[in-house]
Amino acid sequence: MADEIRALVFDVFGTVVDWRASIARQVETLARVRGLTVDGTAIADAWRGLYQPSMSAVRDGTRPFVDLDVLHRESLDALVEQHGLGSLDDADRHALVLAWHQLDAWPDVVEGLTRLKRKFILGPLSNGHVALQVGIAKHAGLPWDVILSTDLYRTYKPRPEAYQGACKLLKLAPSQVMLVAAHNNDLGSAREQGMRTGFVVRNEHGQGQVIDQKAEQDWDVIADDFVDLAKRLGA
Amino acid sequence: MADEIRALVFDVFGTVVDWRASIARQVETLARVRGLTVDGTAIADAWRGLYQPSMSAVRDGTRPFVDLDVLHRESLDALVEQHGLGSLDDADRHALVLAWHQLDAWPDVVEGLTRLKRKFILGPLSNGHVALQVGIAKHAGLPWDVILSTDLYRTYKPRPEAYQGACKLLKLAPSQVMLVAAHNNDLGSAREQGMRTGFVVRNEHGQGQVIDQKAEQDWDVIADDFVDLAKRLGA
Repeated sequence: MADEIRALVFDVFGTVVDWRASIARQVETLARVRGLTVDGTAIADAWRGLYQPSMSAVRDGTRPFVDLDVLHRESLDALVEQHGLGSLDDADRHALVLAWHQLDAWPDVVEGLTRLKRKFILGPLSNGHVALQVGIAKHAGLPWDVILSTDLYRTYKPRPEAYQGACKLLKLAPSQVMLVAAHNNDLGSAREQGMRTGFVVRNEHGQGQVIDQKAEQDWDVIADDFVDLAKRLGA
Repeated sequence: MADEIRALVFDVFGTVVDWRASIARQVETLARVRGLTVDGTAIADAWRGLYQPSMSAVRDGTRPFVDLDVLHRESLDALVEQHGLGSLDDADRHALVLAWHQLDAWPDVVEGLTRLKRKFILGPLSNGHVALQVGIAKHAGLPWDVILSTDLYRTYKPRPEAYQGACKLLKLAPSQVMLVAAHNNDLGSAREQGMRTGFVVRNEHGQGQVIDQKAEQDWDVIADDFVDLAKRLGA
């Protein structure tokens, strides 16, 4: 199988980057400057909690495509009062939206990607738009070959067009492309489109994590982290 | 100016890669295997000569978008008889189309891009589609941050949408993005869209080159090569 695969495309939030600790830290830093005391981790969890529902209307076509900065801002505006950030002005809220462009990678990511890059085409296949992914890559030193965000197809995962669009842009058959994700549902959607699947265990939600603690299907590869993934794929 | 610029986007054929020597060599290699004696450089020149006209119908909207592999194949089919390659079968012709995915960079490119990458977002803005640019980047070791080919906008330079599309994907104002090209007309089109412009002198057509031997407007930067460009932009 590894010989047929030409490209690895990656889910990013949770799989490549630790959004929770990164957002918590950036929120607390800004709050401190503004003289506010907040629970950054609770805010990160609440913000991320609005992520999936925020995309629904775009996915089902009842809302024209808007990118994740727009959705992140709407979600932030919805939670600030409850979390002690209601006094933040427009510029501060914009700065927090941009915090999602500056997320830290899990410790194994750069080493794993650097090894995988010798053998495969690498790119994020994320609901975070192209500019956001470029920002994360510059911040975290991710050696992507190409950015394949779903804004290129003006939709969001798990819509089939998102997976199909990435394969088409690479001019590869789905069986030549593996999605790597820490989320069983994302992998299930990729498999439905004929793609290969690689599961990596992450603990993105912290101690209270109840989902995605193990592989729920016989994914093509199941790895402990990106270095282990490289090993298993012969890279 | 260099402080305002956030991204450098690059013309590729002629500016980043030496298409002429690369295509000539690959054509001659395949011809030799097939027992044919051909003039690879003449074929490269003839093939490239059909490049601009081949895009006209897509640019003016009379033909639905097709990518450069399709156009390269049509142009190749039009010239094989005259150049002693008429006996090549479909698979061989396809292999030659893919030669455009494996072009060598000019000698200064990797060093220059590596320096520029520390300060700027870097990506090709080429009429060669995403998969083609990924191929060239893997072949030549180009450290792009993002691929911004015009197939993403389903058009070809110099249509305004090609330049505008790249800036929009990066979520940058045109004044924050510099096009780097060895072609005065490409830079003129970018300037019309409000982008910054960087001219690099190349000799892509060999000794007989008559165009683009010097800057024809007061481009924002005029450089000898990519290392010189990095120096002039403080990178």
